[in-house]
Parts: sequence; C-alpha cells; structure tokens
Amino acid sequence: MEYDSFLDRQPGGAVTAGTALHFTVRGTDADSVMLMLRQDGQAALSTNLAHTADAFEGATPPLSSGLWFYRFVVVGPRGTQILAPTRTGLGGVSVAYQEQAAAAWYQLTVVARQETVPAWYENARIYHIFVDRFNNGNADGHVNAPKSNTFLYGQLTDDPYYVKDGAGEVVRWDFYGGNLQGISQQLDLIQQRGFTALYLSPIFEAASNHRYDTGDYFKIDPVLGTLADFKALVQAVHARGMHLILDGVFNHVGRDSRYFNALGHYPTVGAAQDAASPYADWFTFKHFPDDYSSWWGVMDLPAINKQSQSFHQFIAGGPDSVLGYWTGLGVDGWRLDVADELDLDFLRQIRQLLDRYPDRVVIGEVWEDASNKVAYGTRRPYLMGDMLQSVMNYPQRTLILEFVLGRQSAAAVLQQLLSLRENYPAAVFNSNFTSLGTHDTPRVLTVLNGDLTALAQAVLLWTVLPGNQVGYYGDEVGLTGSADPANRKYYPWRRENQTVLNLYAQAAKWRQEPALQAAALFTGFTFGAGLGVVRESADQTLVALFNPTKAPLTFSRAQADLRYLSADQQVRLRTTKIPAHSQVLQLLD
Amino acid sequence: MEYDSFLDRQPGGAVTAGTALHFTVRGTDADSVMLMLRQDGQAALSTNLAHTADAFEGATPPLSSGLWFYRFVVVGPRGTQILAPTRTGLGGVSVAYQEQAAAAWYQLTVVARQETVPAWYENARIYHIFVDRFNNGNADGHVNAPKSNTFLYGQLTDDPYYVKDGAGEVVRWDFYGGNLQGISQQLDLIQQRGFTALYLSPIFEAASNHRYDTGDYFKIDPVLGTLADFKALVQAVHARGMHLILDGVFNHVGRDSRYFNALGHYPTVGAAQDAASPYADWFTFKHFPDDYSSWWGVMDLPAINKQSQSFHQFIAGGPDSVLGYWTGLGVDGWRLDVADELDLDFLRQIRQLLDRYPDRVVIGEVWEDASNKVAYGTRRPYLMGDMLQSVMNYPQRTLILEFVLGRQSAAAVLQQLLSLRENYPAAVFNSNFTSLGTHDTPRVLTVLNGDLTALAQAVLLWTVLPGNQVGYYGDEVGLTGSADPANRKYYPWRRENQTVLNLYAQAAKWRQEPALQAAALFTGFTFGAGLGVVRESADQTLVALFNPTKAPLTFSRAQADLRYLSADQQVRLRTTKIPAHSQVLQLLD
Repeated sequence: MEYDSFLDRQPGGAVTAGTALHFTVRGTDADSVMLMLRQDGQAALSTNLAHTADAFEGATPPLSSGLWFYRFVVVGPRGTQILAPTRTGLGGVSVAYQEQAAAAWYQLTVVARQETVPAWYENARIYHIFVDRFNNGNADGHVNAPKSNTFLYGQLTDDPYYVKDGAGEVVRWDFYGGNLQGISQQLDLIQQRGFTALYLSPIFEAASNHRYDTGDYFKIDPVLGTLADFKALVQAVHARGMHLILDGVFNHVGRDSRYFNALGHYPTVGAAQDAASPYADWFTFKHFPDDYSSWWGVMDLPAINKQSQSFHQFIAGGPDSVLGYWTGLGVDGWRLDVADELDLDFLRQIRQLLDRYPDRVVIGEVWEDASNKVAYGTRRPYLMGDMLQSVMNYPQRTLILEFVLGRQSAAAVLQQLLSLRENYPAAVFNSNFTSLGTHDTPRVLTVLNGDLTALAQAVLLWTVLPGNQVGYYGDEVGLTGSADPANRKYYPWRRENQTVLNLYAQAAKWRQEPALQAAALFTGFTFGAGLGVVRESADQTLVALFNPTKAPLTFSRAQADLRYLSADQQVRLRTTKIPAHSQVLQLLD
Repeated sequence: MEYDSFLDRQPGGAVTAGTALHFTVRGTDADSVMLMLRQDGQAALSTNLAHTADAFEGATPPLSSGLWFYRFVVVGPRGTQILAPTRTGLGGVSVAYQEQAAAAWYQLTVVARQETVPAWYENARIYHIFVDRFNNGNADGHVNAPKSNTFLYGQLTDDPYYVKDGAGEVVRWDFYGGNLQGISQQLDLIQQRGFTALYLSPIFEAASNHRYDTGDYFKIDPVLGTLADFKALVQAVHARGMHLILDGVFNHVGRDSRYFNALGHYPTVGAAQDAASPYADWFTFKHFPDDYSSWWGVMDLPAINKQSQSFHQFIAGGPDSVLGYWTGLGVDGWRLDVADELDLDFLRQIRQLLDRYPDRVVIGEVWEDASNKVAYGTRRPYLMGDMLQSVMNYPQRTLILEFVLGRQSAAAVLQQLLSLRENYPAAVFNSNFTSLGTHDTPRVLTVLNGDLTALAQAVLLWTVLPGNQVGYYGDEVGLTGSADPANRKYYPWRRENQTVLNLYAQAAKWRQEPALQAAALFTGFTFGAGLGVVRESADQTLVALFNPTKAPLTFSRAQADLRYLSADQQVRLRTTKIPAHSQVLQLLD
C-alpha cells in the first residue's frame, strides 16, 4: 500500500475553505484503510476509505480554513501500519510506520481565501540593495551628513569591519556612504540587468549603517539623502515601470531613537527618559530605565511591546501612520522584518491598511516554511489570505545550494520543492521572495567556494524554479563575502566579474520565457543523481536537466523517475548527455 | 655643619673639563671634614678640607669630563656623619647620614665642552602638531589618499578611538585627515600666537595615523600630501622667520615598511621576506620570519638592531642619508624619538652629520633628568657636548603640575628645579624642550581637572621658568583629553575657548620680556606654601609669586626663605598679597 500526496490527493496544493478533498491510497493488499484527519490542535477523526479496483478511496466533507494534518491506518496481512511522510510538513510518497506515536503527518493547507499578488509583483525580478554599500551619488564621493562618532571607510574597496568593544557591542558605526541619489543614478544599469523592482534595506534615520535600529520612522536618514532624494527615486523608479519595496522594521527600534531616546539625542521625551513619555507603553521595562526587553538581548534594540495599540496605530493606523505616509508617497511593497515576532492582529492591521492602496505587496521575513511556522509556541497563519502575500524563501535557497554542493540528493531536493509547492498557496509559492543570499547570509559565490561552475548551476536552478528572483546587489558581478559583515562589501564598481555578469544576464533572459513566468506549472523528476525541472505555460514547455556530480550523466526516460510528469510531458523528453557539474535547458517543441 | 650645593660649590652648575672646583662646608663644629669625590663607576678619593674662619674649605684638581659624585665625611662631637643630599642627583642643602651605605651623593656634571644651541632655537616657542589632528587644507574637506582598510572619522568633532582586536592590536587605523597644506594655511595664526617654530609628529609614509611605524623614510605620507607640499611648507615657515623641527624615529620601523615588508606592500625585498634582504642586518630574528625583536613587544614595530652600521649609514651617513636628505631640504631640527634606546655612537654620528648643516638642533626624547640617565644598564652621556642639545623636559612639566595641584610643596619644587639647573649644561637647561603636555601625556587642562584657574597658574609658571615653551596644538584653546588616544583630538576649529586663548596670549607676551629670555638668570625662593621665581637679564628683573593654596598668601621678606637670592635681589622685593590659587608677576624697577 502506498500514498503519494503529490499525486493521490485531489485537489492538490493549498485549498480554499469549503473544498472537499479526495484521497486515493494505492494497492489492494489491505483489509481496511482509514483516513485520520485532524485540524491543527484538534483530535483526529477517522474515516474508512472504500475499496475500489486497485486502491482505497474516499473524500472529506468541505473543510474549514486552517492547517490540517492527515495520515492513513492500514489494517492487513502485515498487521496495522500507519502511512505517513518521513516528517510532518513533508509531502510525497508515504512510509509505513508500525507505531502511531512515531508517525508523522501530511500537511493540508486550507486557506480562508486564495492569496493574490499584484500583477507587477507576480513576475518581479527584484534587486536587493543594502543601501550604505551600493553607490554614492555625490560626484566628489563625499559622504552625506556623517553622524558624530562614526567611521567612514578609507577606501570603497575596504573590507567591512565591526568596531566592537570587549563585550561585543558596536561602539562606532562604519559607513561607506552609499545613498539614494546613488541608486537613482544606477537605475538604467539595474534595469538593463533585468530587474524590475528594488528592495532597499531600511532607509529611515538610525544610528547604524543597517538602520534596523530605527531612530525616526518619518525621516529619511540624512546619510542617505533628503526627502526630495527619496521622492526623486520613487519618481525615477516608476518612470521606468519599476517598483520599490522598503524594509519595514516594526518589532524594535533603536536605543538612540525619538521613541526610546536613551541618549537624549532627540528633542522628544522618550520612554527611557520619563515613565510618562507618550511612548511609554511601546516598551517593557524590567527596571526603569536601564533594564528593558530587547531584540535577542541586543540592548541597542529595545523591543516593542507586542500588544501596544498605540504603536500599532502609529505604524498602520491610517494614511498618516508610518506605513500610510510612505505608501502614499509611492512605496509599492513592504518587506516586514522579523515577521515571526510581530503580533498577528498587528500583521492583519498592516495588511488591511496596505490593501487600501492598490497593487501593494506585503512580504514577510520568515526563515522556514511559512505555511506551518510555529513561533513562540503559536502557529502562525501567515498565508491564510489576510497577512503576508510573499515570504523570504530561505528553504528554497538552502535546497538549491545543498543540491549544487552535493549535500542533498536530487530526490530529496525534489521532494522538498514539491512539498513547498503543496504547502503554500499557489500565488505565494509562485511569487515567493527567492534569493540565493541576503545581507543575513554568506554570499552565494562564497558558499560555493568561489567555484563559477557551481555558481552557474545554482543560478540556473534558481532561474528555472518558481519564485520571484531577488538578487542581492553585487552577487551578479561576483562579489564575495562570508557572514556579516563580509557579506556587506561595497559594490565593486569598475571591478565587476564579467563572467558572472554574463551568467546573470543569461538568467535574466531565460526569465522572460513564457514557461518561466509565475503562472507556469512546475514539476520535476530525477534521473539518478540528476534533477529535472519542468515548467509549462499554455504554449511552452521548458525542461532543465541538472548534473551536480563530477561525472557526465545521461538522461534517458527508461532510467528516470518520471512519476510527477504527465504522460504527454514524458513522451516529449529526449535522451540527453549532461557534462559533469553542468545543466541543459531545453524548450520542447 | 651644613653644605648647600646651590651656594657652596664654585663654580656651580655643569662645568667644563679642566675646571677645578672649590667647596665650602659651613660651620666649625667639627674636628675634620673630608671631601669624598668619585668619577662615575670609579672608587671615591678623599681630600681633607681646610678649617677656615667659619667653615671647612678645599678645592679639587682640574676634573676630566664625565659625571662625578661627591659628599662629605664630618668627624666631630657627634661622631662621624656623612653630609649628602636626600637622593643622588638632587642638589641643595645637605642632610646628615650616620651610615655610609645609606648616604646619597651630590652630582657634578663635567662636560667635554659646553653645549650650545642655534640662535633661533635659544628662545624658540614651538608649536607641537600631531599632524593628522590639526588641519585639513583641502577646501572640500576630503582626506588625501586614504589608505586601504583604514577608517576616517565621520566628523572632525568625533572622539578619537583605537580600533583594536581582542588581543589589543590595532586592526584599522583611524584618520581625521590633517595634512601639510593645512599647516601651511595656518602659519599666520600660529605665528600670531607667538610661536616661532613648528615641531611635527612624523610625516614619512607609514601605516598608522601617528607614523612612528615608518614605512618609507624618503617619502612624505600621501595622506599628508606630496613632496611639493612639504617644500611649500618649509618655504612658508622660513619666509616667516620660523623654523621647522621633525620627529626622527630611528629605533624601529613599521612591520609594513619598505625594509621589513612583512605584508609585501612594498616592491623591495624586505627582511621579513628573505634572509638575504639588503635590510636583513637591520633586524634581529629569534625565529624567521615571525618572531623578531620589537619595540616593547609591539609586533607592529620591529626594532632596529642597535649595532647595524648599514642602518646608521642609511640614516646619518651623509648628504644622501635620511637625515642628510631632509635636512638639506631645510629641516631645522630633529627630535629623536626614544633617544634612550639608540646606540651612543649612532647618536654621535647623527650629531656629527647635523653639525655640518649650520644652525640645526638635535633634541632627544628623554623622560627623566637627562644629565644622569641610566638606560639598559648604561649611563647615557647625552649632554657632554657631542649628542643632544636639548631634551624633552618632562621632569619640569611634572614639577609645575604637581605644584599647582598641591601634590608637592614649594620648597620641594624649588629644590628640584635648581637641581635641574645644577645638573644640566646651562645652554641645555635654558633652552630645554619644555611642554605642559604632549601626544604621550594627558592634556594639561584635563590633568588640572578642567580648572581654568589652575591652568593659569601652570601656564604662567611654565612661562617664567627657563626652557623653550613647546605648546601642544590645541592646548592653547582649551582642548581636553586624557591618555592616548583622547589627547589626540582634532583641533577644535571655530570652538576655541577664548579664555584659554587669552591666557596663552598673555604667556606669549610675557615671553618677549628680556628677563624671560633663555640667557636670563634663574633662581627662586619660597614663602611658606608660596613659590617665588626670579629671572634677571642685564637690564630687567622679573619676580613671580605663586600661591597654590586655597587661602590668600602674603609675601614679605621677613617670612620668606631668600637664601638663593642675591642681597641686591632681596632688598628689591616688596610685600605683596597673592589671592588664593593665583600669582603676581612683577618687573622690578
């Protein structure tokens, strides 16, 4: 007896509330097969499946929204067995467990409504800029308005360095001087490279170079420029048909902020100055004013009291709130920093506000499968249709890199990719915020040990898989760097690696094919150690064959596992040789 | 029985070889008085003094050059006693010891020839500039040629900060961007403030901001400007009748230098790269290439092999040597860094070379009384006429500050000042390199806890005492700062403290009086806690009365100890009230 969630559940993927599901457990070698189905946090109910010609089958009543889990109890000649995946959240072919307690569950995502994304976002290619490190728009190279007691790098080719004291706290912030004008000046180049949107690291006034320690939500950091520079950037982006995504950091602020104001740099009365501060309820003091809740114990980042209604109103309360103000000025999307740590009603409020502005997108920073994330003991229903439209697709990044590095087999990678496809609402999965590296990870070329052959495989696999491509500035010209701060070097102007640039140009070109648009179907197959990716639009089919091994591989239908391809797809595949560490991308006739 | 070296030895002070000395031990209450006299390192010889009307007296034969020591053995009604100072090197009134072993010795400096200094140096007032921190001459404020992997300060008002790793090694050097053009542009101002010469911290190419880690002795550091900038500065200094003193750092070089070249930044083959390097004998390897002798264990500063003749020739071998080249370009004086650690023959060679250029001065960094310094187990005959003409007068700085702070009594301070006068050759003492603070000490205003009243006392005492005034840039406008790096802030342009500036202007004005020229006689007296300083030129006598206490003091002849004043000087003194923490400077009729 065998069940494969990718084939044997109808309909597949994340379904809408009110949908009834039909299951088929293949084989006849059983006396009875029972579906065990439970809603998240509830007891399981069991339903006997009916014995059909070569299987056991059955349907559920229409399901209500939420996360559901299921598995099967088979009673037969081998006694009682549980058919379930190897771990909860993973789909695909079942394994047989002898004991209930050990058995995992299949996931079934039932959403209140199918998530949608704005048309511009559906196939966006996004250029992710860590703003201090991209380009200084001043002709003479001077840094705008350096802050007091900060350092500027002697040369733009310098290696980033954190200036920390013995306790590990940053005591001087370091700046290269990238700014908004510098971005405006390079929009032609960015667009030439096939990017259709920008995602900027935080740009509001803050003490640090990363600005995740917001000082004033209503002010462009003077190091980056002025409000006029910002408006000019928005105008220039939109004039090119491009779009702008900002980083929304709403879980904590800076110790040196208008709101906390521990250093007294702001004229307002901050929460660290007076218990009667208008911002008092934003923060939680264990001992006033020096001991307070902070983000992961970083005292430079006082945490926002998650239940503070005044903070929620301040951020998302209407057109004059932080999100209202900047969105009104033309911001097209927000990437919510540490979305896991935000109150769920606050997330809903943010979405409700942004939905009032047409064609805005809300993206969440989530490091795991966002469809089933549990954070702080609570299941996070991010993707039910009223919070996030897209999430940072770190799981897919991991699969791509581990496949290329030979750390995960093609079969394991395919199973996990199809599991993501199964768990996520289609629009989210197809337009997920998918990068090979960010300011929080080592650079892709460094993860791949500087190997340009491996980079080509990673970039092309990233290109043929679903999800919006998010390119971290400099990756496209071979910038290297391990963990923070080495992953935040200045863009290597006039030292671009042309080989890498050509590779990314090729990727951008492929992304224009109909078969690589978000709406195109995605499935895959394995041929030994090789991985095949199939994408199919109404009028085009693309097959990509990846060989991650150091020996040549030959794809032939006879030696491939094509179970997730349609018969029509299968017959169109041709025997193909793939050199070592290489790939072949084909558009089928 | 009593002896006072300041009164009872003829002639006083440091004498020239061949001089016979006459001693008077006052009193008659003894059976015999014996002079015990020994040359440094030799056994003592004894001579019986002759009993005269109210004393015992006697003379030595003409003495050869070197350091001599003496004391007296008195046999009389109290048994045998030794008359000697409280510690060796100190002059003044004797104390009676009962035991030979415990007794100190009076010092007697006998020089081979009486040292002289150039006329311009004799009364120079010197502005000491830590070059990175004084003034950036670029109109737009950009820093010239920043080095790779260095930091520039965000603002010129930033507090200096060393960027060190966990082991305490500097990993990024920090620069404000002061440069040579910036000095040239401020020469009018410096001259207006009464300075007649500049002393610059090292200006040759180096990795650090202080440049004591020389990288290339023949190159102006590009951060500071070009050779043309240097020549322009020399020209501008001389055009004003001013003079230029450079810092000569000849005990160690930088690890990152043309000579050691551990980082391979220079095209030459350095000693750390190849044991056959032309610079191999400059350094001492315990284990090639990573373990080597360095300055005080600072591995960034490989120490020069003190006996390396090739290094001595390189630095001082002739007109093409380092000192020859730069002196030929117009440098008027050299301050020798860590002179204590230089080979004595090397010091003589330096002096011989510089004596070939008229009117050059050689100044040594010595922290103690340079007339009797023992370093590394060897007596240092710096002041015998063939090495140093002037030394950094840190002992006098200490006396001034401790007097003002109430940590040493007027009597103790006077005794030590007169001891310096006694021990040093007259020209050296009168034109010593005398500062209230340097780049190696806390700022004077900080030592005095920001107290401007105390600062006035320190500055005026410094002004009336012998020695060339060396003003550390910014001291004259109230710059503060404790130990390095806080004592190396950027000059506070447009934030100058006018009160302090007025005080220093007053000091500069006083220094123009004939009685405060180097050649003027110096003596002093005490009146209780008060200190009197007398300076006398051919046609002018200045008396300065200092009250370091928190109560008013009245000077009257009857209550003062005037033993070191002539009868003529004594009768001209008038009863004077001195307010608390204050001083009265008078030019006597």
